[in-house]
Amino acid sequence: MALRRLTFVTGNAKKLEEFKSIIGANHGFEIVSQSFDLPEFQGADPDEISVAKCRAAAELVKGPVICEDTCLCFNAMGGLPGPYVKWFLDKLKPAGLHAMLLGFGGDYSAYALCTFAYCDGGTSDKVSLFHGRTEGTIVAPRGDNDFGWDPCFQPEGFHETYAEMSKETKNQISHRYRALVKLREALPSLLLAQ
Amino acid sequence: MALRRLTFVTGNAKKLEEFKSIIGANHGFEIVSQSFDLPEFQGADPDEISVAKCRAAAELVKGPVICEDTCLCFNAMGGLPGPYVKWFLDKLKPAGLHAMLLGFGGDYSAYALCTFAYCDGGTSDKVSLFHGRTEGTIVAPRGDNDFGWDPCFQPEGFHETYAEMSKETKNQISHRYRALVKLREALPSLLLAQ
Repeated sequence: MALRRLTFVTGNAKKLEEFKSIIGANHGFEIVSQSFDLPEFQGADPDEISVAKCRAAAELVKGPVICEDTCLCFNAMGGLPGPYVKWFLDKLKPAGLHAMLLGFGGDYSAYALCTFAYCDGGTSDKVSLFHGRTEGTIVAPRGDNDFGWDPCFQPEGFHETYAEMSKETKNQISHRYRALVKLREALPSLLLAQ
Repeated sequence: MALRRLTFVTGNAKKLEEFKSIIGANHGFEIVSQSFDLPEFQGADPDEISVAKCRAAAELVKGPVICEDTCLCFNAMGGLPGPYVKWFLDKLKPAGLHAMLLGFGGDYSAYALCTFAYCDGGTSDKVSLFHGRTEGTIVAPRGDNDFGWDPCFQPEGFHETYAEMSKETKNQISHRYRALVKLREALPSLLLAQ
């Protein structure tokens, strides 16, 4: 039987590689990637934003697609900046994300949330969501400043930030890894449902 | 000559009334309002967001439309929360908007930005933008808590917040009024350009 093609929407070759490596091979899909300039919507809820983006991608691809969204949610700010963290990181850098919380009475707790959204691009516009969540604390930046907000996020139970950890350690506890594991478990049933 | 219909996209009767009163009558348009559940996009730039929303509205109306967007921009945060202020206000209230700036070395300066976007909904998807900007400071909330972030915005040159001022005073200096004045000046040429 020919494998069904599944498009992971990303322009990032490293993300595709990690995706394939964690998802594995025995799921009945051929994984490809494609990069789109998809609109990102605003919304009160990260799930709404993921669903809208995934539908837009499925319409373009006209076949099964997976999109990814990442939020960094500060408890003292009711979950914000959440889906808007990329704009805040861009303007404020990790040190500024930490500074934003100074006025909130010492509550620096936060969680990192990764959402994978799947839509089969067929007659139904149903979107399935797979979440991975890692609790932690927003700290003054420490460690390698290469990747996003990693230097200011210290996961619960660790003394290192994401940026200070080995890649192996981070990949065992990261919000992204946890979401990918859930997606991996669901892939066979997603294929059958088509 | 029959007046050309111009749809102001709002579900807020008070905004429509203010709009009509400032825009006046001698511009050749019949002003109506309509409320849509328009998608709001994310973007690096408030203008991009206004343009995308106005195009979406013009496609639905298939005629001339005007949309409004408001940003509250903190200088210490590179202009953020900007177009996302409504989500932050919803979660943090005016007191929380003020608290967000405690960690930024005493820079509480900000500006309120109103953008009216016009698209004629015809063969061109050109969008014209009209900006009004009022400089000010983010303060601990004072005054009537009825309207959005008004209690924490103190315009430059005043000792009162927007929420403490008389409506007459606010309407002479507000970001919204300034944008409407520019739109009013441009309406005759927008009508001619159709």
